[in-house]
Amino acid sequence: MDNVGEVQMARVATREALRFMTDCLKAVGAASRAAQQQAELLIEADRVGHPSHGLNRLELYVNDIISGACMPNNEPKVLKETASTAWIDANNVLGATVSHFAMDIAVKKAKESGVGWVSVKGSNHNGMAGYWARKASEKGLIGMAFTNTSPLLAPTRSKKAALGTNPLSVVAPASAGETFYLDMATTAVAVGKIEMQMRKEEKLPNGWAQDPDGKETNDAHLAFKTGCLMPLGGGEQTSGYKGYGLAAMVELFCGILSGSNYGHHIRSWSHSGDGGPANLGHCFVALDPECFAPGFGDRLTDCIHHWRELEPADPSSPVLAPGDKEKKHAELTDAKGTVSYVKQQIESSAALAKRLKVTPMKVEPEI
Amino acid sequence: MDNVGEVQMARVATREALRFMTDCLKAVGAASRAAQQQAELLIEADRVGHPSHGLNRLELYVNDIISGACMPNNEPKVLKETASTAWIDANNVLGATVSHFAMDIAVKKAKESGVGWVSVKGSNHNGMAGYWARKASEKGLIGMAFTNTSPLLAPTRSKKAALGTNPLSVVAPASAGETFYLDMATTAVAVGKIEMQMRKEEKLPNGWAQDPDGKETNDAHLAFKTGCLMPLGGGEQTSGYKGYGLAAMVELFCGILSGSNYGHHIRSWSHSGDGGPANLGHCFVALDPECFAPGFGDRLTDCIHHWRELEPADPSSPVLAPGDKEKKHAELTDAKGTVSYVKQQIESSAALAKRLKVTPMKVEPEI
Repeated sequence: MDNVGEVQMARVATREALRFMTDCLKAVGAASRAAQQQAELLIEADRVGHPSHGLNRLELYVNDIISGACMPNNEPKVLKETASTAWIDANNVLGATVSHFAMDIAVKKAKESGVGWVSVKGSNHNGMAGYWARKASEKGLIGMAFTNTSPLLAPTRSKKAALGTNPLSVVAPASAGETFYLDMATTAVAVGKIEMQMRKEEKLPNGWAQDPDGKETNDAHLAFKTGCLMPLGGGEQTSGYKGYGLAAMVELFCGILSGSNYGHHIRSWSHSGDGGPANLGHCFVALDPECFAPGFGDRLTDCIHHWRELEPADPSSPVLAPGDKEKKHAELTDAKGTVSYVKQQIESSAALAKRLKVTPMKVEPEI
Repeated sequence: MDNVGEVQMARVATREALRFMTDCLKAVGAASRAAQQQAELLIEADRVGHPSHGLNRLELYVNDIISGACMPNNEPKVLKETASTAWIDANNVLGATVSHFAMDIAVKKAKESGVGWVSVKGSNHNGMAGYWARKASEKGLIGMAFTNTSPLLAPTRSKKAALGTNPLSVVAPASAGETFYLDMATTAVAVGKIEMQMRKEEKLPNGWAQDPDGKETNDAHLAFKTGCLMPLGGGEQTSGYKGYGLAAMVELFCGILSGSNYGHHIRSWSHSGDGGPANLGHCFVALDPECFAPGFGDRLTDCIHHWRELEPADPSSPVLAPGDKEKKHAELTDAKGTVSYVKQQIESSAALAKRLKVTPMKVEPEI
């Protein structure tokens, strides 16, 4: 095992991790295509360096299928549509199944009318928002994706959470092989970052999380136990109400527009699958830049290059364009042909393999 | 004069302030309707408590008209359109003129096809983004408005600014008389807040602004002089790159989509009007919630009520729903029938009246 910081890591061939995840989902009854699409979504998160949304999530999906909270072989259906909109019932399928279905419709409508705006209810977690926005970008369109999630974000001044980490993503095709890629939770940080500080026995910066009294805390253990994140911007003095407003905006586009569960009505985050169907809401938008000024891709690339070339305050930390971190991580993954997981993840995957009677995930020998 | 904090304030009848602004714009040649619409936009900012976007901006518009940088009596025109999109050349008119023109088109397309997405080039400052999003909301639609602005925001790690404060706004009609109202710059704070700390001789919180070396500064005087704001989220450790990403996203919807000036190509903020046409870009979106699940307004009101009723960490600071601050300020303004301006603003307005030979703004007697 390698050591990254103080965390022990193990390497797994990217294809082997994909195979393992597909097999696990098939073992609990998902049809081949649904299992494959969900596994592709998860491996992409590991590939671009967002492990919280990768293999780490597999057991949650597996448990939801076993408990009947998710029905992977149902079919999503369109409930209502216009030239540029569609309202969809996911019918409780896996997040990847309905997200492909919905974004395909958004793309088709954008090609026909300029914009496609699609709202989904009755869904399950659909992984990295950026994966779906990128799907539209690969067709030459500006893609956007939003999803609601279980309550974890405390509105400014509130003692407890009432909104999810509610991510938003915008991905757009630029010229010269560049892509604008923004995928962000509307909390300051994800729970995983607090867990990491806790493991390293380091204090939290201001603006990340609250204690049970609703006060900002620097205690990583207390923050992890409380599970109450601050919005992007942190406290009120640093405009955390803007992050709260963005999380609310994402909920407006997801649960409130689609009629799924929303905000405080969403089941709390859990791996048990005991809470019944999640009934989450998503939103997918595709917009055709060809409907506006010619030269969109060139202007976007001009900006991306300009940002990267800005003089940094610290010469050892170059300025990045949105998405550069993910792009670099993906290139490294592809060059090595392997993804890395923390030891704990390898162990829980082995236990899962045993439980589901699938071939365990093969770990690469230490270098 | 009243004292708010240490700042001397004077009251002016709301109608008188509107009259004065209209007269000033007419005095430099704007036709009656264009002058009236621009003045209505400005007075609304003063009414809801965003004085930076109100009377405070008048002289900038006046100077741009005098110098020929803005041509208030031109007409905006549609360059390209589809069922759900339009690309518009503002033809260098006042921001209010083209923003009414563009949002009217977005609303019409949303009523017909579900969505209207309109991109504008060749424009000037168009005031509070929320004013335009609210225009769609008043027609029963979800309204969105975005605009680019002169560079003031330093991308994460950068020594200097490369993007504007690039505001975004989403306004939506709820039931029971409620409205969801989000209008936010993508910087942590506006320059005006730094000015206020400077006047009070107080230090800046972390995460607001940079010094000339690109380091976070707590020195309000240095920050004001440097004019380099940090994105929403502040430094890298508190995810300021998300605010940078949002500012970039707004630019993508505005200058990059419309072919106006964008990012680092926009003239620097100035009251001189010497820089030639601003050629700013805006984006207006209208979306019909009727195209999705019935009950949109009720779900939105359920959330708004839930947020307001959350237990606050500090019992003296109740939790607010997005837009509550503006709503309360507008109610107070309407009850009094007056808006308040700092003494400096009253003096510069008197000087402007003299310069333009218009009837000076009448100040209410002290109470």
